[in-house]
Amino acid sequence: MIKVAVFGYGTVGSGVVDVIDDNNELISKRIGDDICVKYILDIREFPGDRNESKIVHDVNVILDDPEVSIICETMGGTKFAYPYTKSALEKGKSVCTSNKELVAAYGPELLETAKSNNCSYLFEASVGGGIPIIRPMNTSLAPEHIEKIIGILNGTTNYMLTKMAREGSNYDDVLKEAQDKGYAERNPEADVEGYDACRKIAILSSLMTGKTVNYENIYTEGITKLTALDFEYAAKLDRSIKLLAIAEDKDGKLAAMVAPFMIGREHPLNGVNDVFNAIYVTGNKVDDVMFYGKGAGMLPTASAVVSDVVECARNMGRNISFAWSDEKAPLADFKDNERSFFVRIKQNAKDEAKEMFADAKEIEGVSGEYAFVTAKMSEREFDDKIVKLSDVINIIRIEE
Amino acid sequence: MIKVAVFGYGTVGSGVVDVIDDNNELISKRIGDDICVKYILDIREFPGDRNESKIVHDVNVILDDPEVSIICETMGGTKFAYPYTKSALEKGKSVCTSNKELVAAYGPELLETAKSNNCSYLFEASVGGGIPIIRPMNTSLAPEHIEKIIGILNGTTNYMLTKMAREGSNYDDVLKEAQDKGYAERNPEADVEGYDACRKIAILSSLMTGKTVNYENIYTEGITKLTALDFEYAAKLDRSIKLLAIAEDKDGKLAAMVAPFMIGREHPLNGVNDVFNAIYVTGNKVDDVMFYGKGAGMLPTASAVVSDVVECARNMGRNISFAWSDEKAPLADFKDNERSFFVRIKQNAKDEAKEMFADAKEIEGVSGEYAFVTAKMSEREFDDKIVKLSDVINIIRIEE
Repeated sequence: MIKVAVFGYGTVGSGVVDVIDDNNELISKRIGDDICVKYILDIREFPGDRNESKIVHDVNVILDDPEVSIICETMGGTKFAYPYTKSALEKGKSVCTSNKELVAAYGPELLETAKSNNCSYLFEASVGGGIPIIRPMNTSLAPEHIEKIIGILNGTTNYMLTKMAREGSNYDDVLKEAQDKGYAERNPEADVEGYDACRKIAILSSLMTGKTVNYENIYTEGITKLTALDFEYAAKLDRSIKLLAIAEDKDGKLAAMVAPFMIGREHPLNGVNDVFNAIYVTGNKVDDVMFYGKGAGMLPTASAVVSDVVECARNMGRNISFAWSDEKAPLADFKDNERSFFVRIKQNAKDEAKEMFADAKEIEGVSGEYAFVTAKMSEREFDDKIVKLSDVINIIRIEE
Repeated sequence: MIKVAVFGYGTVGSGVVDVIDDNNELISKRIGDDICVKYILDIREFPGDRNESKIVHDVNVILDDPEVSIICETMGGTKFAYPYTKSALEKGKSVCTSNKELVAAYGPELLETAKSNNCSYLFEASVGGGIPIIRPMNTSLAPEHIEKIIGILNGTTNYMLTKMAREGSNYDDVLKEAQDKGYAERNPEADVEGYDACRKIAILSSLMTGKTVNYENIYTEGITKLTALDFEYAAKLDRSIKLLAIAEDKDGKLAAMVAPFMIGREHPLNGVNDVFNAIYVTGNKVDDVMFYGKGAGMLPTASAVVSDVVECARNMGRNISFAWSDEKAPLADFKDNERSFFVRIKQNAKDEAKEMFADAKEIEGVSGEYAFVTAKMSEREFDDKIVKLSDVINIIRIEE
């Protein structure tokens, strides 16, 4: 019998208990051993909850119980999650987490602790919710030199952008609706400013390079400046607007960034709508592969945590290894990236703009505005030009 | 040092050697040990080939060499591949294969042989070429009750259907073009009649149920009856036509089939074009996930084989288990499936058809024809009706 403890009885934690209970028979069959949840750690009481008897408030009850071999850490944050995870691994208990913050901040250290204690630290649920991506990166794509990753990694913003595109709504209205539906937090900053996507692409970049990419070093722009008019222009260009997280190998250096991009109808990420996420990976041998699914939500994320539990159960007493060292990955300057830019300016700056961006393609605009798509140029060259232009309304990058 | 042998120096086999050589440094790093190809088994000579010195003609040279721990079987067929694979596994050598025929015919037996000899039989490359699907099914989706799988599993036919849709070409012309480009065999039967897709969905169905689904029991229809006119109708319906392989759980019984279907623009499989393949999986907890990539081709398929090699290298001396027994999966009759049907008949049968399919939606047709989409009904009910109609030109199923 495999005995599991869950740290944190919130949305994902209760989903984990649900998945292990509901699908118990088939999970046991696929593991080749019975499995159950023995403890749930939470500071709160849950009177009347069907798992009330499993709730404990003292982490040491779990850490000191030799029967518990696998822990699901679904607490979030780092203050408690870090020391609890560290202690569990030191006691040879494997930890499966959905906590992207912890993985992004302490990944290599915790992987090393797991290795020295013949257990595992797995984090499938930390990126892309229910989408299998961490394990495929570590196994299926292990023979590959990964050249590029493009991800739609945040469900909240993708839901909002899909709404804006379909209904012509404004940013504030869709944010309010997303909050009312529980898709966005009351303080939506982590999602709409791109911080969540940034932590996720930092994790994927680390797996891509085998070294550590700090999220603080990734240029990040959110979706707060987008308006209904931007989506009208996008429709005219037969493009959609997506918040993309991109990591690219540039001659052995990593160029990573998060920002809204316009992508064409033929791009495989174009059809990724609502709360769905997708990760598009290009390898030097396998070419393009894409992983698609629900990027958030209780059960999809919980399912990813439990898939890690199954892996741990199949690998009792041994470490599942990741090539992710704490050496810093060399970074390229994203300003060297070449691309086209969609630009909206006030009508009065039109002549100035036409002279500056001679090869630009004009877009039929709204009254009082002049809009165009530049030729391909580096971010640096574009920046140098655009700062000289007065009355810029908005700029959106274009991903071919 | 991990020493590998490759059985069959054809397209995939030479790709395997290429991937192991070209990406040697990073693969070694990810395994944590050096890796090389020691032997290549082929009946042919390859004078001047850069791997000429590795070619052997006698399988026993490899089977008797204790240094060889992993074998890549890329021979195809079962006549030699079966006894060679069986012998290798009996000697404790893990086997990684791209051979869907062998997996579909002898999967559970070879998995059992691997298990009793503490080695592994892995077959990532047997379905979906470079797309990670077998390992994700066995690991990432292990907590899931899989409700449905819909796959575009054959690159040749998807290339042809994409051409027909985009260029209005006729079947014979696109087949000839596909043959000229090397995408289709001179004898294209296995692809165009759906046999290849059928073997692949049989493998996925077996992993889905944990039991054995024989490909002979899967209803299979190819693309040979499709014409340019069908694609004109599809465009009018804002749908595309794809060869789908579907496996569905019906109250504990499996309903599987392969046939051309019309799917809507919003369906995630709609954008899967050219030689790309995709597998769309619905689980009871994770909801919908999709895997996309190149379904064929030397390097993508070889990369999948090498990903299995990496797994074996990380699991030396132990078996990587699959829940796939030789017990037969109970099968549902696909004729109980409910769906709509697109039907083309000759104009003179119009009144008869209108009476028979009272709820049908008429489609503006070409001169001399009457075309319609039926209401949802079971395949059985539809069959019972349609046999009574004279002058049926073509029928295409609709997947919502």
